[in-house]
Formats: sequence, structure tokens, C-alpha cells
Amino acid sequence: MFTYHTTVQLHQTDAAGILFFGRFFFLAHDAYQAFVESHGLGFAKVLNEGEFLLPIVHAEADFKAPLQVGDKVAVKLRTESVGDSSFVLAYDLVKLDGSSAGTVKTVHVWVDRKTFAKQPLPDWVRRALTANQVK
Amino acid sequence: MFTYHTTVQLHQTDAAGILFFGRFFFLAHDAYQAFVESHGLGFAKVLNEGEFLLPIVHAEADFKAPLQVGDKVAVKLRTESVGDSSFVLAYDLVKLDGSSAGTVKTVHVWVDRKTFAKQPLPDWVRRALTANQVK
Amino acid sequence: MFTYHTTVQLHQTDAAGILFFGRFFFLAHDAYQAFVESHGLGFAKVLNEGEFLLPIVHAEADFKAPLQVGDKVAVKLRTESVGDSSFVLAYDLVKLDGSSAGTVKTVHVWVDRKTFAKQPLPDWVRRALTANQVK
Amino acid sequence: MFTYHTTVQLHQTDAAGILFFGRFFFLAHDAYQAFVESHGLGFAKVLNEGEFLLPIVHAEADFKAPLQVGDKVAVKLRTESVGDSSFVLAYDLVKLDGSSAGTVKTVHVWVDRKTFAKQPLPDWVRRALTANQVK
Repeated sequence: MFTYHTTVQLHQTDAAGILFFGRFFFLAHDAYQAFVESHGLGFAKVLNEGEFLLPIVHAEADFKAPLQVGDKVAVKLRTESVGDSSFVLAYDLVKLDGSSAGTVKTVHVWVDRKTFAKQPLPDWVRRALTANQVK
Repeated sequence: MFTYHTTVQLHQTDAAGILFFGRFFFLAHDAYQAFVESHGLGFAKVLNEGEFLLPIVHAEADFKAPLQVGDKVAVKLRTESVGDSSFVLAYDLVKLDGSSAGTVKTVHVWVDRKTFAKQPLPDWVRRALTANQVK
Repeated sequence: MFTYHTTVQLHQTDAAGILFFGRFFFLAHDAYQAFVESHGLGFAKVLNEGEFLLPIVHAEADFKAPLQVGDKVAVKLRTESVGDSSFVLAYDLVKLDGSSAGTVKTVHVWVDRKTFAKQPLPDWVRRALTANQVK
Repeated sequence: MFTYHTTVQLHQTDAAGILFFGRFFFLAHDAYQAFVESHGLGFAKVLNEGEFLLPIVHAEADFKAPLQVGDKVAVKLRTESVGDSSFVLAYDLVKLDGSSAGTVKTVHVWVDRKTFAKQPLPDWVRRALTANQVK
């Protein structure tokens, strides 16, 4: 499991006084970006030079408790499953008191940058993802 | 069905050159806000004075095609189902050529503002939602 | 003068119940994007194929009145000045009652995409900007 | 001087491949929020219970260099000046190599929550701001 720490910023909340539901996906993706970078893979380099793309084809979230401006959140990211050319990541947004504010899932597909055809996951990617399956 | 028209803004795209996946939920919610306002119910008034809240407890999306800056999008919003104290809205983000860039679902629960206890949907809400079930 | 109409969305407000100050610049840029598109120039095409870039080198805003979710805003965009290789745009964010919620200015520079060297504004750009100087 | 560390997230960039200019103000405000919290003052508490508000009445930025996804940024925040009921904060967004990507200024006014009338800055606020004037 990979943990990303963040704080809810004022501009991430809305007039209901809480984190806008759509931003749960942003916090999850921030954790994903940090996870990718922790493997020495920068998004900027991938986007500019990579031979592959990793579009998200599905995302979902369950919202359990509101998050307010200033709340500290630990986004706990683990690999839920790994397929031939895709994988599923699961995120739990945990508050300081240990309770969950919500969970997110994202499904990613490995495709050729030019043809958009599905490609088998490279071994090093599979290894990194599998190593992150432990809870 | 209720249709909301929008244009993808530069700041809604990311360095991959396309609408950031999390923003599909924002466009869907913009359509929801317009739908609510079309029934004479302003969000500001509800948030400041309402006796109820309508938190979103689940959201999901399938992403089918990229959206670029400047793309015109028709967000087609219809009621998928209406329960005792909750309802499900389904959104299709349709491009100018009639193809779908993706679909979104949101599940909303009607709760008391102070106790957060589920409340039965008022009749006028049920009527408005049911009238929007037709495809 | 070019006018762009928009509505304040829930996710553009913050927990203070009003449009987050930084988003005034987003609404101004949305008007700018619409102005550019009104001249048949799509941002996606420019970003992918253009030989020039138009970075914003300075921006400023004065905030006069709060904007709430649902508020209708007319962003009135006019050219304040046109230089050899740069120009200044001025925006007034006007509420339904005709009062101003705030003003924005952005300074844009025309540069070569590869060298980032300043370039003289093309005549057609100068003409379009000059035509928009009238209040 | 107060320093806030952050990383540019994918959703903060746009299709030009760089941090959207308007988001410089967001990063500055994130530093401001962290500065305020470092004095034991939570935004949520202030917004819900405070007798005052601190609207930003002016903001401006100079953009010097692009920021890409993954870039580490140190936002250096210092007090530029303190008036009777207002103050000016200056921010420098510094890259890992020590160069500046841009600077931001925000002007804040201390007002009564109900009447919106300007109020003299409380002494403890003046002290905290003055202590942060050193470069």
C-alpha cells in the first residue's frame, strides 16, 4: 500500500462547506501521481516522450463523510487487480481519526500512444503494481 | 430528459491535452445544477435556507472518448430511478457528432439538514424526477 | 467589446460561500477563449499546430462584490491596448443588476513556439484586437 | 518568511502542458492557508464561527517561467506591508533550481462579518504579520 498525505484546500471546498464530491477523484489521482513518481516515472516525461498512454476508462467513488477545509487526509492507494493490459487501483481517503471519508476506484488501460490499441503491461509495471497489492 | 450545453475550457484540460477524467463529474454536476435551477430552485437559497441537504453518496463514470479544449458538449441528464429517500441520475456527455464521450451516474440522498437522517422525498421532487425519466 | 455569459457553478465557490478569488481569472479566460473562438481560431488547433504561443505574463484583478452559486455573470472583454508584440485585455464581470463584481486584466505576449522570442503581432491579430477596443 | 512546499498536479496543468496561469493564485493561497494554520487558526473554524472576514480585494501575478506536472515548487510567502485594517502578502514560486516561476501579491482587508465594515487589525494579527516581514 502507498500512502499520500494532503490537506483540504479552501478552493477544493464548495459553498456547502465541504470538499466537492468530484474532487475526491482529484485527491485520488494526486496519490496516483505520487505513486507513479515514487517509481521514478515522471508524468511530464511520459506525456512528452512515452510510447504508451494510460487512459482511465472507469472511475467510481463512495462518499462516507464530509471533508472540510484544513482537514488532513491520508490517501491509501493499493492495487486491487492486475489484468493483461489493464489494472484497477483502490483508494481510501482516511481522516486523522482513522475513519474513512470515502473510497475511490480507477481502471487504467495500457495503450499504444499512436494506435490506441491495448498493449500487454510491461513486466516492470506488473511487478510494481503487484507489489502494491498487499493491504 | 434535460440537456445542458457547455464548451470545454482550457483550464479543464490537462497536460495530456484532454479533459481531466475527474472533470466529467464537474460537467455532469453543472447539468444537474441547471436542471435544479430550471425548477426554480437555486443552490444558493437551498444551501443557506433549506431544511434539507442532498449529499451525493456514490458517483461513477465510464470514459469513452477524449474531449479537447473548445469541444462542444451536450450533457443529457435523465432520472434513472427514484427511491423512497434517494434517486439516481444518469448523464451522457455527447459530442457534436452525436457520439458519446462518456457517461456518469450520481446517487443522491435526501437528508435532514440537522440530523442527517434520511427523509422521504417530497412529492414535488418525486414528480420532477419522474417526469425526467423519459429518455 | 465582446460579452461572454456564464453562470457560477457550485464547484467554483468555496466554503466561504462565494466564488473563490482565483476563479475570477478562470471566468476571464473563458471569455478570452470564446473571443478567440469567435474569430475562428480554436485553442486545440493553436496548441497542436500553431507556430506561435501566447503566454500570459501578467494578470491582476480587483474584487468588488461576492458572486454566489447560480449568479449569472456577463464577462465584458475589451482590448485595453495593443503593442508591437503584446496586448492587454480588460474584463469586467457584471452581475444581472448591472453592478460589477470585479475586474481583471491580462497581458499577453506573442512568441515563437520554438525560440520563445517575441514576435510582432500579425496584422489580422492586430486588427481583431483593435476592433475590440471600443467600449 | 514562510515557505510552503507543493508539487504541480496533473489536473493543475492545461493542454498547453503547463500550470494554468490562474492556478498560480491557487498555489499562493495554499501557502497562505498553511501560514494561517501555522498560527493555530483553522479556516473552517474562522468561516463557521469567526466574527470577522478577510476578503481579498486585489490580486496580481507576474509569470516568469512555465511549471510542468511533477515540478516541485517552494512558495515563499512574506508580508509586504501592514496597514490599519489591511495587509499585503507577497509570494515567490521558486523551482528546485532556485529560479522563480512567478510572483503573486494579494491584498486582504479585515472586515466585520455582519456589517462588512473595515475593522482595525487585532494586535495578534499585526504581530504575526510583522514577524513575517523579514525576507
